[in-house]
Amino acid sequence: MAKKKKYVYFYGFGKANTEGDASMRALLGGKGANLAEMANADLPVPAGFTVSTEACAYYSSHNNQYPEGMLEQLKAQLKKLERLMGKKLGDAKDPLLVSVRSGAAISMPGMMDTVLNLGLNDKSVQGFIASTGSPRTGWDCYRRFIDMFGNVVMGPTTGLTHDDFEEAMTALKKKYGAKEDNDLTAEHLEELCDIYKKIYFKKVKKPFPQDPMEQLLASVNAVFGSWNGERAVKYRQINKVTGLLGTAVNVCAMVYGNMGDESGTGVAFTRDGSTGDEQPMGEYLVNAQGEDVVAGIRTPKHIEDMPLEPSPIWKKAHTKLIQIMKKLEEHYRYPQDVEFTIERGTLWMLQTRNAKRTGLAGVRWAVEMATGKDFYTGKPQKKILKPDEALATVTGADLEQLLFPIFDPAAEKKADVMTKGLPAGPGAGVGKIVFEASVAEEIVKRNPNEKLILVRHETSPEDVGGMWAAQGILTSTGGMTSHAAVVARGWGKCCVVGASGLSIDYKAKTVKVGNKTLKEGDWISMNGSTGIVYFGQIPTTASPVVNAVVYGKKDALKHPIYKMYKQISDWTDKYRKIVVRTNADTPKDAAAARAFGAQGIGLCRTEHMFFEGERIWAIREFILAEDLAAREKALAKLLPLQRGDFEGIFKAMDGYGVTIRLIDPPLHEFVPQDAAGQAEMAKRLGVKTSVVAARVKRLHEMNPMLGHRGCRLSITYPELCVMQTRAIIEAACNVAKTGRKVLPEIMVPLVGTKEELDFCADIIRQTADAIIKQKKSRVKYLVGTMIEVPRAALMADAIAETAEFFSFGTNDMTQMAFGFSRDDIGGFLPDYLDKKILPADPFLTLDTAGVGQLVDMAVKKGRASRQGLKCGICGEHGGDPASVKFFCKVGLDYVSCSPYRVPIARLAAAQQALGK
Amino acid sequence: MAKKKKYVYFYGFGKANTEGDASMRALLGGKGANLAEMANADLPVPAGFTVSTEACAYYSSHNNQYPEGMLEQLKAQLKKLERLMGKKLGDAKDPLLVSVRSGAAISMPGMMDTVLNLGLNDKSVQGFIASTGSPRTGWDCYRRFIDMFGNVVMGPTTGLTHDDFEEAMTALKKKYGAKEDNDLTAEHLEELCDIYKKIYFKKVKKPFPQDPMEQLLASVNAVFGSWNGERAVKYRQINKVTGLLGTAVNVCAMVYGNMGDESGTGVAFTRDGSTGDEQPMGEYLVNAQGEDVVAGIRTPKHIEDMPLEPSPIWKKAHTKLIQIMKKLEEHYRYPQDVEFTIERGTLWMLQTRNAKRTGLAGVRWAVEMATGKDFYTGKPQKKILKPDEALATVTGADLEQLLFPIFDPAAEKKADVMTKGLPAGPGAGVGKIVFEASVAEEIVKRNPNEKLILVRHETSPEDVGGMWAAQGILTSTGGMTSHAAVVARGWGKCCVVGASGLSIDYKAKTVKVGNKTLKEGDWISMNGSTGIVYFGQIPTTASPVVNAVVYGKKDALKHPIYKMYKQISDWTDKYRKIVVRTNADTPKDAAAARAFGAQGIGLCRTEHMFFEGERIWAIREFILAEDLAAREKALAKLLPLQRGDFEGIFKAMDGYGVTIRLIDPPLHEFVPQDAAGQAEMAKRLGVKTSVVAARVKRLHEMNPMLGHRGCRLSITYPELCVMQTRAIIEAACNVAKTGRKVLPEIMVPLVGTKEELDFCADIIRQTADAIIKQKKSRVKYLVGTMIEVPRAALMADAIAETAEFFSFGTNDMTQMAFGFSRDDIGGFLPDYLDKKILPADPFLTLDTAGVGQLVDMAVKKGRASRQGLKCGICGEHGGDPASVKFFCKVGLDYVSCSPYRVPIARLAAAQQALGK
Repeated sequence: MAKKKKYVYFYGFGKANTEGDASMRALLGGKGANLAEMANADLPVPAGFTVSTEACAYYSSHNNQYPEGMLEQLKAQLKKLERLMGKKLGDAKDPLLVSVRSGAAISMPGMMDTVLNLGLNDKSVQGFIASTGSPRTGWDCYRRFIDMFGNVVMGPTTGLTHDDFEEAMTALKKKYGAKEDNDLTAEHLEELCDIYKKIYFKKVKKPFPQDPMEQLLASVNAVFGSWNGERAVKYRQINKVTGLLGTAVNVCAMVYGNMGDESGTGVAFTRDGSTGDEQPMGEYLVNAQGEDVVAGIRTPKHIEDMPLEPSPIWKKAHTKLIQIMKKLEEHYRYPQDVEFTIERGTLWMLQTRNAKRTGLAGVRWAVEMATGKDFYTGKPQKKILKPDEALATVTGADLEQLLFPIFDPAAEKKADVMTKGLPAGPGAGVGKIVFEASVAEEIVKRNPNEKLILVRHETSPEDVGGMWAAQGILTSTGGMTSHAAVVARGWGKCCVVGASGLSIDYKAKTVKVGNKTLKEGDWISMNGSTGIVYFGQIPTTASPVVNAVVYGKKDALKHPIYKMYKQISDWTDKYRKIVVRTNADTPKDAAAARAFGAQGIGLCRTEHMFFEGERIWAIREFILAEDLAAREKALAKLLPLQRGDFEGIFKAMDGYGVTIRLIDPPLHEFVPQDAAGQAEMAKRLGVKTSVVAARVKRLHEMNPMLGHRGCRLSITYPELCVMQTRAIIEAACNVAKTGRKVLPEIMVPLVGTKEELDFCADIIRQTADAIIKQKKSRVKYLVGTMIEVPRAALMADAIAETAEFFSFGTNDMTQMAFGFSRDDIGGFLPDYLDKKILPADPFLTLDTAGVGQLVDMAVKKGRASRQGLKCGICGEHGGDPASVKFFCKVGLDYVSCSPYRVPIARLAAAQQALGK
Repeated sequence: MAKKKKYVYFYGFGKANTEGDASMRALLGGKGANLAEMANADLPVPAGFTVSTEACAYYSSHNNQYPEGMLEQLKAQLKKLERLMGKKLGDAKDPLLVSVRSGAAISMPGMMDTVLNLGLNDKSVQGFIASTGSPRTGWDCYRRFIDMFGNVVMGPTTGLTHDDFEEAMTALKKKYGAKEDNDLTAEHLEELCDIYKKIYFKKVKKPFPQDPMEQLLASVNAVFGSWNGERAVKYRQINKVTGLLGTAVNVCAMVYGNMGDESGTGVAFTRDGSTGDEQPMGEYLVNAQGEDVVAGIRTPKHIEDMPLEPSPIWKKAHTKLIQIMKKLEEHYRYPQDVEFTIERGTLWMLQTRNAKRTGLAGVRWAVEMATGKDFYTGKPQKKILKPDEALATVTGADLEQLLFPIFDPAAEKKADVMTKGLPAGPGAGVGKIVFEASVAEEIVKRNPNEKLILVRHETSPEDVGGMWAAQGILTSTGGMTSHAAVVARGWGKCCVVGASGLSIDYKAKTVKVGNKTLKEGDWISMNGSTGIVYFGQIPTTASPVVNAVVYGKKDALKHPIYKMYKQISDWTDKYRKIVVRTNADTPKDAAAARAFGAQGIGLCRTEHMFFEGERIWAIREFILAEDLAAREKALAKLLPLQRGDFEGIFKAMDGYGVTIRLIDPPLHEFVPQDAAGQAEMAKRLGVKTSVVAARVKRLHEMNPMLGHRGCRLSITYPELCVMQTRAIIEAACNVAKTGRKVLPEIMVPLVGTKEELDFCADIIRQTADAIIKQKKSRVKYLVGTMIEVPRAALMADAIAETAEFFSFGTNDMTQMAFGFSRDDIGGFLPDYLDKKILPADPFLTLDTAGVGQLVDMAVKKGRASRQGLKCGICGEHGGDPASVKFFCKVGLDYVSCSPYRVPIARLAAAQQALGK
């Protein structure tokens, strides 16, 4: 006969008696596996056993029957527990009591809660009282058990609720003039037990079960049943939890925090979750069971205060708790969040799990545990991680928190929330409302210390001056990759977009939210990492990392936070395999990005080179020109200016490649849409206003995103491509002459067919080669293309015959692959996220399942046609950790992202190389 | 030793002497292969030989060296020609003269032209005169030869041109007072030869070559060289001609049409290219060489007049020509276009090729040759084709010409062209200009005989009433799949779009073109098959096919054109393997489509069900509603109306499947954009105008094509999906009750993720199943999706887990795969077609290389996940023959197209099944 399948696993009383460990999460659930793990480490865990998820699966699919052997195994493990504990379940003299808890492989709300004190009945409660000498504890435990068993186990089928019991308790308290639960005496509680049993009978139509085994099996069945309860099923559906067998059931010997003043219960973090300081933090209640801490009935004390309790046992318990927490942290190699109970001076650990902590705390823990020193005090610490292990514990979001000014947490908590939008540019922003970009610019020109928040429906390239001048940007429309969001992130500027609760009135210069109206000059504060906007001013702290890296401030270079950043940063370069470039359009951005570790520019947009200052007038002249000669005349004005721009960038990126994208936006972005602007344009360019208006109208497109832009402009106006190529190559030759290395990579945007690229590449090469020849330069350049149009990915083999490099424009690719306009996605994205139709905003985290196929396909096809084709990505996803890992996997040579995300991309690349 | 490669192929003097045939096009070029083919058929072809394209390829790639053996072979074939002709090249007494012509596998402008009369020199011209007895012919041939050799052979390297010679001739004519070339005497022409030789010497710096072999090889080299001449290379680049070896060279014994009044030359068609009548048509000139016919120096006569010439040889020659043409038509099984020469009464065939003809002529020829009767006279005809062969000779464009009213060709030729746009809806349209759709509707309501052309910048769904009322639609913007174009084609209505030369002024009610201004009420005429718009009225003829099929008119049913259509139509159903459905939104369209042979509805759009009459007010109420209850109340008004619509469609499509697409367009299309309309809406719905204006503003999107539309509406407003499902399923149950078969297929549009489809499919199935259960009906329905978003194609395996069918929306798929907005493509498509960046408008002919990959991928992935998944296509490409063939190839179950394109799709499907 085959060996019977094992369904019930024992834990506690050391490694010898324990049958599971942390690796058995799928079978024992997270809680069961961690309890076993602690028992293996000889930590004081109340013993018990775990009924496996396999048993649950069988039960669910076999009409609520146990699998063969489960019941026998459960009884045998219970016997073992009774033997080791020296007590029997429900024994009339000295009963063993147990808790029963569900616990799936991942934490999952909606399943059955805890049942404590199981095993009590009318007789064993007397034995319990006798053996503990505490009648009050006895009756307190019994009434709690009737309540929990009644509502948790029997509730789902009978409608019995906690409120049914609570009502009776309130009445009793009133009857005896008791204020708090603790004011009730043993006698009161005994009376309450009788009342509870009557309540139970009334709803369940059966007396409260006196047989402990009946109590236990009913509880196990209730846990199993809750796995397929409506709430749990819904939760799994919504959260796409699949592949789990079921829930495990943990049956655990009770320990009592409510056995008087030498007992208590609490929760603790192994270190400061906010600062990362090695000082643990936590709270506890004397003479209480776990649920009291959560319920917030009494105010808990800080664990530092334990040694100050009257009884000396507390000091010992405290020492032991601290020891155990250190041990747990070392064992799990991650800060822990624990639950504990002290029963008459004896410490029991009830649960441990990885702790939540701030980014700063996470980074600090990682670098301190891997370097063996406290970065603040210099004190040695125990080295428990290798650098690669340390890196694995830090997330991009952690690192990001070090780069931006943040609000004083206490002040933010107290601040008055105004509205919420999408967190588009991280950090804190505080300033006075201003509605016009040009006004913002003027104000800051007059007084550079003015703090402003630019509040707009949306922003456009014309607004960049004002956006730069402001502390932050707040828009009422647009998504995470709208103009405002992209520009702000590029600068590391605070930005909240799509705050649809705002009603902006440009004329009246007011913004309404709910029934409040703010006017120009009113102060607001924004948290760009949460999207929350507040009324008034909240104090902020600047980032020492930015002060050190970008501005080279001396005091910042000595700041522990900068040093920690530097350490993480150095490690990432040790492990990562792909290059990280930056998206930068100006020498200033390029310099900041290099300071953050960028190894070249993956995307230099040239649009701003048409906007700034007088340039807009040249491009407007170009747009109005009626023939080639007039257009070339207009472009000739731009040539020296753009050449100057490129010289600056090439100098800043000395020796590194610079990928320059030719003009991309549709021409209508360069002309004024309003009558006044058109009149000004007409006057300045010496034509009738009606001529300007007619041209603007002709430039209007229904779907500009899919319109006359990108390489389509160079095909209609080859002279644009010629001028930009001249500016780039002349700049390259000039900078090369000064002895610097220059590596221009000219990138043609929005290519969908090989023929488009051929057309543009011919112009670029002819123009460039002629200049290089004429200048007798040795400058080398590459001609490549953005892969952003889905068809380009499909035809990548053909396109790579001409393209010397590919750079994935995953923003536009996401727009076109999904058919989502990023300007308009705000209209339905909230619904999509709410209804879990999308797991995340696909403009933030690459849709690897769909859009990722196009990337993968294009890399493979491109390289099949041109061996070793250089492939990179310059969309917003280049700074998103999950996306960066995907890009590493499909074999890109580099990712490129905005300067402030370079450290984050470097971290993600390192983690991917380390298999994390 | 290996056998020497053959480079020179003889033809003429019957099959025994001929070495090539029609199948050797690649090697001998089109001309050489057809000359050999005619020689094989014992037709009177002047003998000669063809130097192969392989020789040309060798010559090009080996620095202008002949391949080994070519020269010897050429000399041997020349000897054979001399032997069989009994004359020697350039012989002083009775010289053999030859022509030299290029000829690649496909016709290709830009290569070397013909050189005639080669072999003449100062001596042989005397022999030629002696042997022919015609001094004038002799000197005429010699001066022509010097001219042609000079400019065609020597011109490219020396700059000598035809004009250099022509100038001298004009001077000579002046000198002798000759009006026409023919007025010059033999003496004049002899003098001219001397002048020509001097001109030649001046430019070439060498005397005119007297050695006939030198003349011949120089000509062969010139032909070879012209293959890589700038013009030919450019032509091949632009037209993407690749894979050809080079050009062949045809050396052909001369025959002379210029040997007096019993000689002549001409061109002819084997039957009437306009009507398809079996009467051949053609033109000839007495006493002329071929170039004279082309040059149009004299007015040619019709070939029917040949028997009337004074000399009796002409009657015989005419009889023989007619016989040969019949024979050629039978031999090539296609109407032919021939060149012939009559030399002193002897007929020679110089060339034959497939003739160009009208659609009507093509269809008539095909059905008559396969049925053996003249459809007009009933006279028997020789059966030379099987039905499948006949089908292969007819194109979709041929068939299309039978379906639309057309202009009287003579009248159209004389009409005054106003402007040109894109030919969006075929046929002829004549009417008075009207600028407002509502005005058009009113006018026609008052007088149904009014003929109107609706002239707009663009049209929108609100305009459909007026579009239907008008004879044709003319827009100044938009592409081939703009709203106007799609709607018009669906109705078979004449439409020209994107006529950007028009300046429309709605206020003034005028349209300007150039310096002419037309006003409302002025007549214009449009040819929807060419896109040309004319001033004034051009007479038209209606299509007997439409009269018979759609309106069942009795006289039309007897019309030969209808009978021919019917014959073709019947044959298509015999061969095609895939189903052809239609895109139809109303019972009327559905009925017309069934008459055209549609087997179901592949796309029933439901948008119009929200627009017509009072409905627009219900959907506007829905849009303004502030909560679910108010929205449901508004939708309740639409339910009975839409149910009625569906009942009508199900009845019309009795027994066939009907695919119904849930609402697709963004909501902003349902609200008025102008202030007056918004005020009316506010008044009618009892709210403030500012409320309407604010809502309209909120609905505005930057890129509505990629906005809140399709299934995204059902996700935000599930109640919309519920209402439409109710209307469909209740209608289905009602119609089923009357004993009809009903097969509703509910299609969710714009799906990009499985989750979107799951969400909608859940609503549809829950709603539908409840109704079916409640009504105790047995109606079956399917739930499927459009595959139009590129991501849907990538994720087709996942989506097919839920979808019971796929229907490819290749319009939107083309938009998103290319990133082309079809509303805006007019801005650059002309550039793209001019510069050959696109081979065709991808909205008309599917881009099989790119978009086709997505279709193919989705079919494969979908069927891998759901065996036998039904796949169809309902984009505009469903009616394009080339696209239909592709869809057959990738294994779709059906194509669906607008009613008037159903016959064309059926033909294409049949041809594909026949391997054509």
